Amino acid sequence: LADLTGHSSEFDNASAIRCRQNDESTFDTEFNADWLNLGIVNGGVVLAVVGRALRERLSQPSGHQDPFAISAHYLAATVPGPAEVRTEVIRRGRSLSTAQAGVWQVNSTGVLTERVRVLGTYGDLDSLGEEFNTTAACPDLIAPQDCISTEGASPEMLSVSGIHRRIDLRLDPTTLGRLGGDGASSSGVSQGWLRLRDGRKPDPLMLLLASDVLPPVTFNLGMQGAPATVHLSVYVRAKPASGWLRLRLRTSNVVGHYVEEDAEIWDSAGRLVLQARHLIQVSTWVGTPPIDGSSAKESGK
Amino acid sequence: LADLTGHSSEFDNASAIRCRQNDESTFDTEFNADWLNLGIVNGGVVLAVVGRALRERLSQPSGHQDPFAISAHYLAATVPGPAEVRTEVIRRGRSLSTAQAGVWQVNSTGVLTERVRVLGTYGDLDSLGEEFNTTAACPDLIAPQDCISTEGASPEMLSVSGIHRRIDLRLDPTTLGRLGGDGASSSGVSQGWLRLRDGRKPDPLMLLLASDVLPPVTFNLGMQGAPATVHLSVYVRAKPASGWLRLRLRTSNVVGHYVEEDAEIWDSAGRLVLQARHLIQVSTWVGTPPIDGSSAKESGK
Repeated sequence: LADLTGHSSEFDNASAIRCRQNDESTFDTEFNADWLNLGIVNGGVVLAVVGRALRERLSQPSGHQDPFAISAHYLAATVPGPAEVRTEVIRRGRSLSTAQAGVWQVNSTGVLTERVRVLGTYGDLDSLGEEFNTTAACPDLIAPQDCISTEGASPEMLSVSGIHRRIDLRLDPTTLGRLGGDGASSSGVSQGWLRLRDGRKPDPLMLLLASDVLPPVTFNLGMQGAPATVHLSVYVRAKPASGWLRLRLRTSNVVGHYVEEDAEIWDSAGRLVLQARHLIQVSTWVGTPPIDGSSAKESGK
Repeated sequence: LADLTGHSSEFDNASAIRCRQNDESTFDTEFNADWLNLGIVNGGVVLAVVGRALRERLSQPSGHQDPFAISAHYLAATVPGPAEVRTEVIRRGRSLSTAQAGVWQVNSTGVLTERVRVLGTYGDLDSLGEEFNTTAACPDLIAPQDCISTEGASPEMLSVSGIHRRIDLRLDPTTLGRLGGDGASSSGVSQGWLRLRDGRKPDPLMLLLASDVLPPVTFNLGMQGAPATVHLSVYVRAKPASGWLRLRLRTSNVVGHYVEEDAEIWDSAGRLVLQARHLIQVSTWVGTPPIDGSSAKESGK
C-alpha cells in the first residue's frame, strides 16, 4: 500500500488483513512489535485492524464503509504475532449495516483466546451532506513545536512503546501531570497533536488508531498503576482533512480504580471528526513499572 | 416480584425473563404494550431485559452483577409480544466478566429477526469502595412539581406512548423546545426528573431503563422527523440512592440527521450514577407523525 508520496504506509502495513480463501468471515493479521505501547499492542492498532475487517464485510454492496458507531470490549492484552479476526454480519440495512468481530490469538499456554469483542455499525459519511452543528470547543493547544514529543521518552520507555517511533504525538505539557514538570495541572485532561511520521494522511481508519493513543488521564491525575482500556465506543463523525489532528481526553468521573474518559478528535480544518468514550481500569503493575525500564507483561483484567 | 411497599413492581414484571429449561443461554420474555414509546417498545425497557439476562449469566459465581459497560446496537424496532434473548458468555475474569446478548422476535412476515445486539461487561459496584472524584455538575433543575409531567401529554400521544403512565417523568419546560412554550431554548439539552409510579426504588437495572426515557434533544433543537437510537453505551458508576433521579441529555455535535447525545443520571444524594452516550438517527416519519395522533409503525433504519 502506497501513500501519495509513493512510500508504503507503515500504518496500513501494520493493520493489513488477509481474507481467508473460502471463508469470507475470517481474516488473518500479524500484530507488529513496532506498534507496542507499554509492552502490549496498542488498543488503537487493534481497533484499526478490526475496523478494516468490518469495512470489508459491510462496504459491499451498500457502500457502508465508514464506522458510524463502534463498541469494543477488551478482554485481554493483544500481543505481537499472528491473530485472526472472526466476523459476523448481523444486519444489512438501507442506511446502516451492523457486524461483529472478535480478535483471537494463541496465548502463552497454546490456547486460542479472544482479545477483544467488537460491534460496529457502518454507514456512508459522504451521504450526510455538508450540514453540521457543533457546539463543542476545539482544544486550545500550544503549537506542536512547543509540545512534548513522545519520541523523546526514555530509551527504556521506547523499548516497550515502539508506537512512539511510528506516530508523531506532541503532548501538551500542561496536561502531563507530574511528568510535565512545573506548570502542569491535574485537570483530568490529556491532549496533544497527532500525525503519522511517514506522511500517511488521516482517514476514518487512521482515526480509529488515533482514538486510543493519548496517555490516559490517569497520568494527569497522578493515579498509580497500569491503565487498561475496558471499553471504548467510537463515533466517526466526518472524514478528516489532511494535516495535524488535535486530540483531547477528559474525565469528569473517577470511581475507585475505574475512570471514564471522553475523547474528541479535531482535524486541521477545525472540524470535530471523532467522539469516543472510554472506560479505563487502573491495575497494579505486573512487575516493575515500565517507566523504570522493565516491560509490562500480558495480563488479563 | 414485590417491592418494599408489598406491591409487585410494574417495571420488574415488564422486564421479567424466564431461562429455558436445559438451555442456560436462552431467555424468554414478553414485551408489554403498556411500555410503548411512539408505538414501539421503549429502548430502555429492551435494555433492562437484556441487562437482566446478562446479569443472570455473569453474577454467578463471581458476583459480577452490575453493568459496568453495556453497548447496544439497535437493529430494528422491538414490538409488543414474545421475544427471546440469546446470550453467550465471552469471558469470566477476576474483576470483570463479559457476555453478549441478542433480542429476537418473529416479525410481521413470520421471520425470526434480531432487534438489538448487546455486549456487556459486568463487575461488582460494591467492590469499588467509597472513593470517587466527580467534576461533572449535577443538572440545575426546577422542582418536580414545577416541571411538565409527561402523563399530561395528549390522549393521542399517550395512546402510542403508554410508558408515560408507568414512569413519573417531569420535564424541564425550558428544554422542551417549541413544545415548552415561551421561555424554551434550543440549547441541545433535554432534562428532567424520573421515578417509577409504583414506588419501585432505583437500582442498576432501573438505571438501564432510565438511560433511554428522556425525549431526545432533537425535539429541543426543533429537528423534524422520527428519532431512533442507533447505538447506546452505558456505564453504571454507582448504586443509586432512593428517591427522584435527575436525568440530562446534551448534544455537542449534530451531523446531517445523526445526533450524538451525552446522558447523565444523578441520584437523590447528588451522586453521578450513570454515564451514557447515544447516537440518534432522525428519519422521516412513517405515516402521520404521532404527535398528530397516528401511531408509529415498525420500521428498520
